[in-house]
Amino acid sequence: MAEREEHGIEIEGGRETRTLKEPLLQKTPSRINTTSQIAIVGANVCPIESLDYEILENDLFKQDWRSRQKNEIFQYIVLKWTLALLIGLATGFVGFFNNLAVENLAGFKFLLTNNLMLKEKFYLAFATYASCNVVLAVIAATLCAYIAPSAAGSGIPEVKAYLNGIDAHSILAPSTLFVKIFGSIFGVAASFVVGKEGPMVHTGACIANLLGQGGSRKYHITWRWLRFFKNDRDRRDLITCGSAAGVAAAFRAPVGGVLFALEEAASWWRSALLWRTFFTTAVVAVVLRSCIEFCRSGKCGLFGQGGLIMFDINSASTTYSSADLLAVIFLGVIGGILGSLYNFFIDKVLRAYSIMNEKGPVFKIMLVIIISLLTSCCSYGLPWLLPCTPCPAYLEEDCPTVGRTGNFKNFQCPPNQYNDLASLFFNTNDDAIRNLLSLGTVKEFHLSTLFVFFVAIYFLGIITYGIAIPSGLFIPVILAGSSYGRLVGRLLGPLSNLDTGLFALLGAASFLGGTMRMTVSLCVILLELTNNLLMLPLVMLELLISKTVADCFNRGVYDQIVTLKGLPYMEAHAEPYMRNLVAGDVVSGPLISFNGVEKVSTIVHALKLTKHNGFPVINEPPFSEAPELSGLVLRSHLLVLLKGKKFTKQRVMTGLDIMRKFKAHDFSKSGLGKGLKFEDLDMNDEEMEMYVDLLPITNTSPYTVVETMSLAKAAILFRQLGLRHLLVVPKTPGRPPIVGILTRHDFMSEHVLGLPTYQSTQVDKG
Amino acid sequence: MAEREEHGIEIEGGRETRTLKEPLLQKTPSRINTTSQIAIVGANVCPIESLDYEILENDLFKQDWRSRQKNEIFQYIVLKWTLALLIGLATGFVGFFNNLAVENLAGFKFLLTNNLMLKEKFYLAFATYASCNVVLAVIAATLCAYIAPSAAGSGIPEVKAYLNGIDAHSILAPSTLFVKIFGSIFGVAASFVVGKEGPMVHTGACIANLLGQGGSRKYHITWRWLRFFKNDRDRRDLITCGSAAGVAAAFRAPVGGVLFALEEAASWWRSALLWRTFFTTAVVAVVLRSCIEFCRSGKCGLFGQGGLIMFDINSASTTYSSADLLAVIFLGVIGGILGSLYNFFIDKVLRAYSIMNEKGPVFKIMLVIIISLLTSCCSYGLPWLLPCTPCPAYLEEDCPTVGRTGNFKNFQCPPNQYNDLASLFFNTNDDAIRNLLSLGTVKEFHLSTLFVFFVAIYFLGIITYGIAIPSGLFIPVILAGSSYGRLVGRLLGPLSNLDTGLFALLGAASFLGGTMRMTVSLCVILLELTNNLLMLPLVMLELLISKTVADCFNRGVYDQIVTLKGLPYMEAHAEPYMRNLVAGDVVSGPLISFNGVEKVSTIVHALKLTKHNGFPVINEPPFSEAPELSGLVLRSHLLVLLKGKKFTKQRVMTGLDIMRKFKAHDFSKSGLGKGLKFEDLDMNDEEMEMYVDLLPITNTSPYTVVETMSLAKAAILFRQLGLRHLLVVPKTPGRPPIVGILTRHDFMSEHVLGLPTYQSTQVDKG
Repeated sequence: MAEREEHGIEIEGGRETRTLKEPLLQKTPSRINTTSQIAIVGANVCPIESLDYEILENDLFKQDWRSRQKNEIFQYIVLKWTLALLIGLATGFVGFFNNLAVENLAGFKFLLTNNLMLKEKFYLAFATYASCNVVLAVIAATLCAYIAPSAAGSGIPEVKAYLNGIDAHSILAPSTLFVKIFGSIFGVAASFVVGKEGPMVHTGACIANLLGQGGSRKYHITWRWLRFFKNDRDRRDLITCGSAAGVAAAFRAPVGGVLFALEEAASWWRSALLWRTFFTTAVVAVVLRSCIEFCRSGKCGLFGQGGLIMFDINSASTTYSSADLLAVIFLGVIGGILGSLYNFFIDKVLRAYSIMNEKGPVFKIMLVIIISLLTSCCSYGLPWLLPCTPCPAYLEEDCPTVGRTGNFKNFQCPPNQYNDLASLFFNTNDDAIRNLLSLGTVKEFHLSTLFVFFVAIYFLGIITYGIAIPSGLFIPVILAGSSYGRLVGRLLGPLSNLDTGLFALLGAASFLGGTMRMTVSLCVILLELTNNLLMLPLVMLELLISKTVADCFNRGVYDQIVTLKGLPYMEAHAEPYMRNLVAGDVVSGPLISFNGVEKVSTIVHALKLTKHNGFPVINEPPFSEAPELSGLVLRSHLLVLLKGKKFTKQRVMTGLDIMRKFKAHDFSKSGLGKGLKFEDLDMNDEEMEMYVDLLPITNTSPYTVVETMSLAKAAILFRQLGLRHLLVVPKTPGRPPIVGILTRHDFMSEHVLGLPTYQSTQVDKG
Repeated sequence: MAEREEHGIEIEGGRETRTLKEPLLQKTPSRINTTSQIAIVGANVCPIESLDYEILENDLFKQDWRSRQKNEIFQYIVLKWTLALLIGLATGFVGFFNNLAVENLAGFKFLLTNNLMLKEKFYLAFATYASCNVVLAVIAATLCAYIAPSAAGSGIPEVKAYLNGIDAHSILAPSTLFVKIFGSIFGVAASFVVGKEGPMVHTGACIANLLGQGGSRKYHITWRWLRFFKNDRDRRDLITCGSAAGVAAAFRAPVGGVLFALEEAASWWRSALLWRTFFTTAVVAVVLRSCIEFCRSGKCGLFGQGGLIMFDINSASTTYSSADLLAVIFLGVIGGILGSLYNFFIDKVLRAYSIMNEKGPVFKIMLVIIISLLTSCCSYGLPWLLPCTPCPAYLEEDCPTVGRTGNFKNFQCPPNQYNDLASLFFNTNDDAIRNLLSLGTVKEFHLSTLFVFFVAIYFLGIITYGIAIPSGLFIPVILAGSSYGRLVGRLLGPLSNLDTGLFALLGAASFLGGTMRMTVSLCVILLELTNNLLMLPLVMLELLISKTVADCFNRGVYDQIVTLKGLPYMEAHAEPYMRNLVAGDVVSGPLISFNGVEKVSTIVHALKLTKHNGFPVINEPPFSEAPELSGLVLRSHLLVLLKGKKFTKQRVMTGLDIMRKFKAHDFSKSGLGKGLKFEDLDMNDEEMEMYVDLLPITNTSPYTVVETMSLAKAAILFRQLGLRHLLVVPKTPGRPPIVGILTRHDFMSEHVLGLPTYQSTQVDKG
């Protein structure tokens, strides 16, 4: 009921496939000194387009709305919920499959290596281990480099940017989905210090996009009913649900998933969407639970307790004194500093890698091989440096562990001893985290072990992010954080009564807070992961401290990556310098506008010469008494109209004919790169001299601001309503009815700070 | 960093104290048939005012912004966080005090009565019990009826309306805060079927408002530093924090508090605010924990385990089969129906009570006495109807309970027996819920007991809400829901393996979902209350089912009360009929506008004759070539300007003089009913003939829409940006530069549906 408004009348299209650098350079010649800040990571090969959440009110859409039947509205609501259900089901199954595959692949690898080690064939074991890793890594990298380069990395920044209104090329395409799923499986199985959680979020978003399209148009499997969802607003809602489902599937944290979507991913939010997202994640939770129940019977190969991380530390006692609180604060401050350093290094490494990655797919794969070998060397080599530990007597479980996973890896040690560093390194990441978080195991890991592991994982995590495989950041950060927390816990042991396992949890919280800068969602995710509500106040405190400390140094890692990729992200707040500029300062010309009834050749030339996506339509005499702003027409709509060739020889209004010929869904918006292109038009000379009536497809009520409005105020309007174009009108009468158009790029600091107007303002003030 | 935008340059004021009915009647004579829908509960005695979240850009504020120092921005940020801390501290302490007082008062009452019952003086016991209740009830009602009538009821609808932009009279005043705290204590102690949770939310909001004002201006204790917070936007943020802190204190649910504020209370939300809210609730959690730790040593009188509800059912086993799922679905469907019926009855009862309440404070108190006697009769009388039960043998605790609270009330029974209905009825509400949710106690309550209790509590809850005491809805709904759940659990016992205690929890969830229609926040609150994360999927399912079912019948109880109080709440979505109207249809004249330099008498007359809060300023020759829209000036700013008497004999611009005389904070917005009033002006005849320059206080960039924009689109703009005035400009040039102004009331369905334009549209269509 609360979503009736969403039942949009317009089905919208737009194309503005420009590379980011060009228009900025055209507009702002003085901007060169700031270029280095943006578009580092391959943005200049990657077309991006703005999304548009405005309600388009043109005659055609209005007619369609009026003729829409009640049962269609009902159909729409049913479909919306069905899609939410399907997204939940699909994401849940994919999340489970992901875990199942990783556990089996990695488990098989460890079994193979362990058998060789038991026979004391240590060099052969290393060769097997390293080559398994390289093979898995190369598969992942090949998929990524050749099929879908945009599947590399976490994917959360891209989803975040999409939900902010930036559609980057093929970011949610079916090929990306495929590579994201399988690349992530092979990458994680290859023992990289990467997680499958970030990729799951991206996977969820891709699934939502695919389902919303109702299949791929390329293969002509679209579903007529889904025509209501062919617009940016409904797609945004679906993808918000999808990203929440992804988090829910990755962490088995349904509430955490909703909050993640709310706090980190989404830029727009409504209460009704909260409910739908919640439903989706509930479905995911049910699917996962059923699958795990199914696997209990042992039908899932090596998938055991290890799959689908869940670090149950419910049994921990949780009384704490003020000395403990001091320890927690200390942990948070240092964790915040280390977290912001992590971001700093990630930034540097990404910039360095982008040079190599741009040379071509072969170089990408080589980089992956190098990092894979380095990881293998670390995880196989470093445990040799440390001594063996005799198995403790009081254990319930086997020691040393015989099977695949477990706390007590025998490694090179004699029987009845174990190598504690191997228990962390020579294991899946999930098992390593489980070991670090385990309770009542103070002595299990030596101080030196924890130190070596922490340092190695901290830097491995940093250099692994950015190579051409799907790589989540959650797991590396949790690994580094929990080993750091356990280390501090051991050091502060005499002062504090908290269990070292709880210290590990708090350490993980401090690192997460320090890198990702989320609060509520991380808090809930950690609670759901560890199933311990009584730790809530301490986890909250830890997150608040580390975020506050880290915010003094730099921004959150996802924001940083968004900037690095050159995506024009609109912040929710306006920068202070925007107060000193007015909208009229920022718009740039020359502005191309059309008459209400325009000559075909004029339109064709304008489309050919510019990359603009929206053109103002101005009614002039004889159609009105004085020039008046009729509205805004979109490039994609013009292309459809021209393709239909409903032209006249005379300059007359033919609105009714056009509205008879076209249906509203002819103008529906398809995904990026899929609609009509300028090259699809073919006009002969006669047609070029004819006229076409633009009024039926002109949005007659675009949002406007007066030229004297401050840029800050205009930015808030633009961002709050999710606009693509904002028309600037003159203050004084008697001038042409429009001054210019503001788009997303006009609000970017790279553009604004390079403007002559801004610089003169600065001089005036200085 | 993310909040720089919030550092608003304007400090804004406005006054429009009109009663709701008048302007609606003036504007829409054909609206009479819809009147019955609104303004039932005392709205015609209660002045309301719209809040304004627009950034005002007039010359004075712009100058102030430019001259603002960097250290002031830093000061602002520090203050903002200090206020969040203070809100958390204060709300936490108040929440604890509340519980402490209730436990001691109610505990003392039960001790007294129990002693008499042990001596078998049953009539005297009843007399004591009933008179204690009546005395406590009368105290609560007297406070409420004479000091702060707006403290009656839950307070959540009012807070919700405030955060939507509606400032009702004295809703957040210090007197309301006082009555809310003490009225709630006495009301709950008087054994009414009411909760202290809703009032805690209101209390939190009042505390935030008071702290944001920096004390009461009436007593000249304001704090100069807080001048930055004298505007609606900063106040809104504080009050959002306050309401979250209230929930956190009421339920000891810090994350639930944040989500409640997000899902139910707030209409606008930013990521940065999420973080601040989270901080506030973390402070609340720490305060409560420390206080409880302090009470462990027994220094808090009768405050024991009973205080600060926390129903720990962590130990429950949580495997469930598909038969259990069917039971859960059944529970949810019936729960949803019963929940929506609850809303229906509440609505009817509120309408009936409002007639009585409007007759005066004495009648209010009489009503309270009647309900109190009825409650006493039920809770003392009904247990007599049911037989005594022998104490089970396996118990660890005392049976029958000797002390104040406990599961096994002896009541009229012989030794070693207990009355199970008395265990529920003759107890504080918190203890009754704890009993209902207790695990492994299938046989403790008879089916007949549960049935009688459920029916009695269901209807007592309904008739108690709406009397003149602060009364929360959470506890009555949880009580009814959990007894319903336990009843169903007993009936389905042979089919399901779930514990009856878990059934009670799920029943409570279904009732909460059915009445309040929240999902995520209720889910988290229930988890935090019961400390059982493994129930998460079932609780989610239950909430989703009951909300879906109940939404088929009516709206959430808080929305219903907002409508009933006649508060013009702006929904996030536009209604479908708004698509068929354009902005120009809805604005109504005659519009009063001023010249840039205007004669004092014209302004004075306009202020006197109309209640309008905003007036367009139109520059006319000789100050411009043609009439042009200069901006919008607010009534409250005009009053300050006129009071300053910076007039000239000639019609000339004197902007600089005015900007020298006034400071921006002279125009800062004070709370409702506290600023300058029209009556404060005194003009002599000479002054009336002079001129004043309005331009320095004219907001030169108000948001405008073209008259042909659909009302739906304008409504979304209005709501998303939190506007108070939206200017409608003409489509065609050559007409006066403004058509009219849209305010909140113009979007209300009562107004729109009564318009002749709307009705003619309907005829056209029909």
